[in-house]
Amino acid sequence: MKILVANLGSTSFKYRLYSLEDGDERMLAKGGYERVEDYASVIEDCLATLQSEGHLIGDSDLDAVGFKTVLGKDLSGCVEADDKALTALEGFKEVAPAHNPAYATGIRMFAKVMPSVTRVALFETAFYQWVPKAASIYAVPQNWHDAGVRRYGFHGASHKFIAERSAQLLGRDDVAAKVQALYQKGDTPVEGAPLRVISCHLGGSSSVTGIKNGVAIGTSMGFSPQGGLPQNNRVGDLDSMAVPYMMKTTGLSLEEAERQLTQEGGLLGISGVSNDLRDVKAAAESGNERAQLALDALVHSIRHWAGSFVFQMGGCDAICFTGGIGENNAELRTDVCAGLEGFGLILHPTTNATTREEGDISASNSRVKAFVIPANEELVVAREVSRFLQAQPA
Amino acid sequence: MKILVANLGSTSFKYRLYSLEDGDERMLAKGGYERVEDYASVIEDCLATLQSEGHLIGDSDLDAVGFKTVLGKDLSGCVEADDKALTALEGFKEVAPAHNPAYATGIRMFAKVMPSVTRVALFETAFYQWVPKAASIYAVPQNWHDAGVRRYGFHGASHKFIAERSAQLLGRDDVAAKVQALYQKGDTPVEGAPLRVISCHLGGSSSVTGIKNGVAIGTSMGFSPQGGLPQNNRVGDLDSMAVPYMMKTTGLSLEEAERQLTQEGGLLGISGVSNDLRDVKAAAESGNERAQLALDALVHSIRHWAGSFVFQMGGCDAICFTGGIGENNAELRTDVCAGLEGFGLILHPTTNATTREEGDISASNSRVKAFVIPANEELVVAREVSRFLQAQPA
Repeated sequence: MKILVANLGSTSFKYRLYSLEDGDERMLAKGGYERVEDYASVIEDCLATLQSEGHLIGDSDLDAVGFKTVLGKDLSGCVEADDKALTALEGFKEVAPAHNPAYATGIRMFAKVMPSVTRVALFETAFYQWVPKAASIYAVPQNWHDAGVRRYGFHGASHKFIAERSAQLLGRDDVAAKVQALYQKGDTPVEGAPLRVISCHLGGSSSVTGIKNGVAIGTSMGFSPQGGLPQNNRVGDLDSMAVPYMMKTTGLSLEEAERQLTQEGGLLGISGVSNDLRDVKAAAESGNERAQLALDALVHSIRHWAGSFVFQMGGCDAICFTGGIGENNAELRTDVCAGLEGFGLILHPTTNATTREEGDISASNSRVKAFVIPANEELVVAREVSRFLQAQPA
Repeated sequence: MKILVANLGSTSFKYRLYSLEDGDERMLAKGGYERVEDYASVIEDCLATLQSEGHLIGDSDLDAVGFKTVLGKDLSGCVEADDKALTALEGFKEVAPAHNPAYATGIRMFAKVMPSVTRVALFETAFYQWVPKAASIYAVPQNWHDAGVRRYGFHGASHKFIAERSAQLLGRDDVAAKVQALYQKGDTPVEGAPLRVISCHLGGSSSVTGIKNGVAIGTSMGFSPQGGLPQNNRVGDLDSMAVPYMMKTTGLSLEEAERQLTQEGGLLGISGVSNDLRDVKAAAESGNERAQLALDALVHSIRHWAGSFVFQMGGCDAICFTGGIGENNAELRTDVCAGLEGFGLILHPTTNATTREEGDISASNSRVKAFVIPANEELVVAREVSRFLQAQPA
């Protein structure tokens, strides 16, 4: 089965072509285009390139194109990217302005250029379909509920992969199998002790998810991808009265307030140094107090959300780190896990310091396991698309 | 020492007169006025009433008037209610529109009517002066920091009383003594094991605070008194992009969005039934699913914040319930503590069910204690004012 995963930005198009057969997963090719003005022509060029390089014979050799869409109004899951999905994307274009219009355009262009190839949308919200209502509702008035204001959650592809992989590493193949089939079979019961995992996806965009028996019970991002942890240059959790206060007292327009929160906040907004954690860390090490505060605030927020999920689940069996920061920043992992001996979590200092690939970084006497699990979101999309296709009636 | 505690609303004035001598605390009188149009005349009437009832000989018999002010711009603590305090209150009138202008007016009127009596402001933010910066900063741009957008926290008088009283109940008089002197001496070190307490102030307005060695490490309310738990009719935590989304997609004005979030949200917004938890509970018991969801969302949010603080502190020695709901709603306390045996917290079912006064509601084998501790915020204000006066140079 050959699946093309398309990653669309407002002026960019990146792709990876995967071959997935039982137990054999290979990336055949990858590439991309920047400053795209005509999506139809780059899609045609992409296809021609894949053919000329011998990866595809033609359209008919491609089983599906997969899209990691962000969120849709009244629609989630891993679904066919049809008119209903396009309507859902466009219904929430204000919530994800950098992504939803780009994906709607891209899906339409693939439909035009290769109409016979199935298009599949994997929404980033899909993993949160089973979160209890009490955890996803905001205490807003009825008209706000009606307009779709609730917690959706994002980074679903990544956190779902952590749910699957952590279960395997913990010897719970039953839970891993359940996670693999989750979007086809739903939240099926599992036998045995509950498996409780904290997944920390830390990168330019970050979130923490609580996972019980392979299913999310909550996540740090909320209605928009701004909620939760401080992001690179986006705000994270913020009192909802702050925007009205700034508009009234400093004369900011709504658009300018939004622009500032999504471009000048996050690690950049606290540190004043950079939106890249590596730069912020270097500045902190040189004695920049604001940079150190940005690091401390990130750690505090990770612990805030991780702690809340541990409590909601009544305990924790493993904490997992993924994403560019989660995989590579051992000091941050140390800070996140500091002082948690009382919860049974103790890192192995040297293993943690040197681990950047998949591995157990907990001490031998740590009751709670700690894992580094590298993210591979495009492969996860390809797998979900493959599962979607296999579940379709012949 | 005689202290008058003045509670001011936009059109109301309530007072309690206390006599505080070493080990002897008595409320001498209380009263109030509604639909106040002329504050000077009601203050004069209040004073005349207290004199005619024999509680005061005159102005000179009153040591101070205490005000439980909400928050001030660039000012907190228990301080003289002078021009600086008035400027601070007026600098944040947009953050607490129902309270700050009323207190500014009231303080000015007391200064006019009884100029020789010391006026003392106990800010509700005072207990959070030692919260680490990483826990009080939002990841906003620099101009937002400059405008004062950060976590302040509220209900400080109540949570500080819980810090003191829980320490006494846990046999830690050293911590209790530290809390008593906190606003005069600051965060002084204590010997021995760290004392870690979760304080749940649950009423028409609710918040959860984490307290380590008698000092707050964080609280659920943030920049405004809207943040954190769902309140009676106010929103609680909400993604900061929800207000811009509603303004752009439904045409709400800024003022109308704020009005809806502060008057039609909270338990009322979820349940559609009432802003009174007792009504919501009755509706839930009659099978109203939205009412049950409102209760579940409140419990979820309490556990979210409590869990985050337990994790930040590395453990917990006691959880305390105070306020109208916290003292009287045993079912809610049961739900908040459910499934936490792994953390060493087990309620005593019958003791919990019957306790409405001060008491230990945990099971004998519960490592974490659970207490009901009734709130008496006016007395707490009087005590703080008394401590302030005693600490002044003669």
